[in-house]
Amino acid sequence: MKFSLLHQDGRARRGRMELTHGVVETPVFMPVGTQGTVKGMLPEMLMELGAQIVLGNTYHLFLRPGHELVRSLGGLHRFMNWERPILTDSGGYQVFSLSRLRSIREDGVDFQSHLDGSRHLLTPELSIAVQETLGSDIAMAFDECIPYPAERSYVEMATERSSRWAARSKAALSQKDRTALFGIVQGGMFEELRARSAAQLQEIGFDGYALGGLALGEESARMYDIFAYALPLLPDAAPRYIMGVGTPEDLVEGVACGGDMFDCVMPTRNARNGLLFTTFGKLSIKQSRFRDDSRPIDEACGCYVCRHYSRAYLRHLYLCGEILSSVLNTYHNLFYYVHLMRQIGQAIEQDRFEAFRAEFYRLRTAGE
Amino acid sequence: MKFSLLHQDGRARRGRMELTHGVVETPVFMPVGTQGTVKGMLPEMLMELGAQIVLGNTYHLFLRPGHELVRSLGGLHRFMNWERPILTDSGGYQVFSLSRLRSIREDGVDFQSHLDGSRHLLTPELSIAVQETLGSDIAMAFDECIPYPAERSYVEMATERSSRWAARSKAALSQKDRTALFGIVQGGMFEELRARSAAQLQEIGFDGYALGGLALGEESARMYDIFAYALPLLPDAAPRYIMGVGTPEDLVEGVACGGDMFDCVMPTRNARNGLLFTTFGKLSIKQSRFRDDSRPIDEACGCYVCRHYSRAYLRHLYLCGEILSSVLNTYHNLFYYVHLMRQIGQAIEQDRFEAFRAEFYRLRTAGE
Repeated sequence: MKFSLLHQDGRARRGRMELTHGVVETPVFMPVGTQGTVKGMLPEMLMELGAQIVLGNTYHLFLRPGHELVRSLGGLHRFMNWERPILTDSGGYQVFSLSRLRSIREDGVDFQSHLDGSRHLLTPELSIAVQETLGSDIAMAFDECIPYPAERSYVEMATERSSRWAARSKAALSQKDRTALFGIVQGGMFEELRARSAAQLQEIGFDGYALGGLALGEESARMYDIFAYALPLLPDAAPRYIMGVGTPEDLVEGVACGGDMFDCVMPTRNARNGLLFTTFGKLSIKQSRFRDDSRPIDEACGCYVCRHYSRAYLRHLYLCGEILSSVLNTYHNLFYYVHLMRQIGQAIEQDRFEAFRAEFYRLRTAGE
Repeated sequence: MKFSLLHQDGRARRGRMELTHGVVETPVFMPVGTQGTVKGMLPEMLMELGAQIVLGNTYHLFLRPGHELVRSLGGLHRFMNWERPILTDSGGYQVFSLSRLRSIREDGVDFQSHLDGSRHLLTPELSIAVQETLGSDIAMAFDECIPYPAERSYVEMATERSSRWAARSKAALSQKDRTALFGIVQGGMFEELRARSAAQLQEIGFDGYALGGLALGEESARMYDIFAYALPLLPDAAPRYIMGVGTPEDLVEGVACGGDMFDCVMPTRNARNGLLFTTFGKLSIKQSRFRDDSRPIDEACGCYVCRHYSRAYLRHLYLCGEILSSVLNTYHNLFYYVHLMRQIGQAIEQDRFEAFRAEFYRLRTAGE
């Protein structure tokens, strides 16, 4: 891959990644496609709303349908009919959040599938092999997702081990021209450990660097402190990915600190629960005040859903439990996230990011 | 409305209806949009797959969100973002199949909502008012859906009452230039009662005529006997609608007997259960034999789903319970039904309906 830092406004960055399956303009929000589909979306809808890259989950696809099967069907892009870039996570996060009876060893993580109880050993080598087999544009180094809160001694031990796993992940990568590899900075809430992790990863050398172990329940202010502290420790010439983050506010703050890439299930999961993002704050479509409301979700939004459907109709679909409720809500929320990042990118190009940020907060507190 | 009988091949008919929201070429299959949405489909998908007209359900929309609310939001077309014609049923079928504690009286049906237990009296006058309020292109006369099997004496009494309700339905229609009204032939499995019903309805005079009370569990052969007997009793110059029917075979046989319009939840409901229609018969996508099958659902189908997705991927989506499984399966099944009717129409135009019918059955028994 090639990364170009096109412009900087304060710490906020406007960049471009050239990947095997195409170009990604940053800052970028990446919709999550856990099981080979972004829940409720056709690939054509994702393209229409402006998604440039989606996530695939190694843990899920490894267990079902299996990475070798996906390869035999032409790889993940072909399997899910998505021609643009795909980033795959390492499986680390899900091994810790979903699987049963896991035991962490130096060689990897021994776990039981949440689907059928089958036993597997996920190692850095296997994680990279799965990601390459899927045909990922960007693979993530295998790491341990450290819970929050955690004792310093545990965080130190786990962060050191993740650095050793990162080195093994890099050594395991076979097609360096085809798949970019990102390292993941751990270190929990401890600045010294974040700094050590960042230094160790740069010594190994990666195409990009991520902040892991965030948005696990800590206060926003604490997470923003880590953004502000850890992002400047990473090289300017590589993309910076803040994993699993977050709310629209988190994205704005992440960019303000120098973040380039973000992913989160929030827009898609919330959509299915009727929680919609707007320029003026959040909106719960099930509320009775929307019963006869002929306005779109967001009067400042130009997406397909806001152009064609009323709040009253979307409330009706939600109350009926209709599939179309999830589809339309997801479309709008993803458009909101993707469009927000595009607006931020334009503001950076025009050296008015701080003005954009102030207006972003003003509109949200002003209400409709 | 205006109906033109364009061509006839044996008893099979090729026609055209001109309705308030556009032209419908017959024979036609009408997807069912119970609650103001064809489950899992965007309106744009329905247009892309060739749907010319969809059904709305009076019973459902009357109870939720309420027809007056739909009117205040610009009518059902605007509410659901569907610009082409809509046919609404009378509510009769659902009052009998879904509601609780109903009692049938001469003035109408007293019932309790399946949603909240609220009491309502649905009369022919109210049914027509609801349908006109929704802005339907074709309204159906209010009738009693006679269960199968039923005693002759009961069927006779109920059929006579439905004829009286049909007359009241016609009298209740206020905007005759905007909304077409169809009468529904009842009479159960009794030819004499079907004939009497057909004669009574023609005496009242309707824009089109439907066969009701079919596909309720009777044998196919018995249903086809009713097609063959009752359809020729109806005027050539009006469209003929076989309600709630049916399988692809039922549609072919219905057209063979002179039917023009069909609706059924089968393609949409089966899709959500992983049951797919193909040129070569039915296919259950969950079966393990499709685990690594790179072929499309139907190798003779040119729909969006068959052009882009493998059986293996569709099986994966189904096993994962993904929303996209319902969306893609529904798209394919509706395309199959709509395309089948278009093929039948072309065959009729070219005086080769019998050859088409023979080939249709040959392919289904030949298998893949």
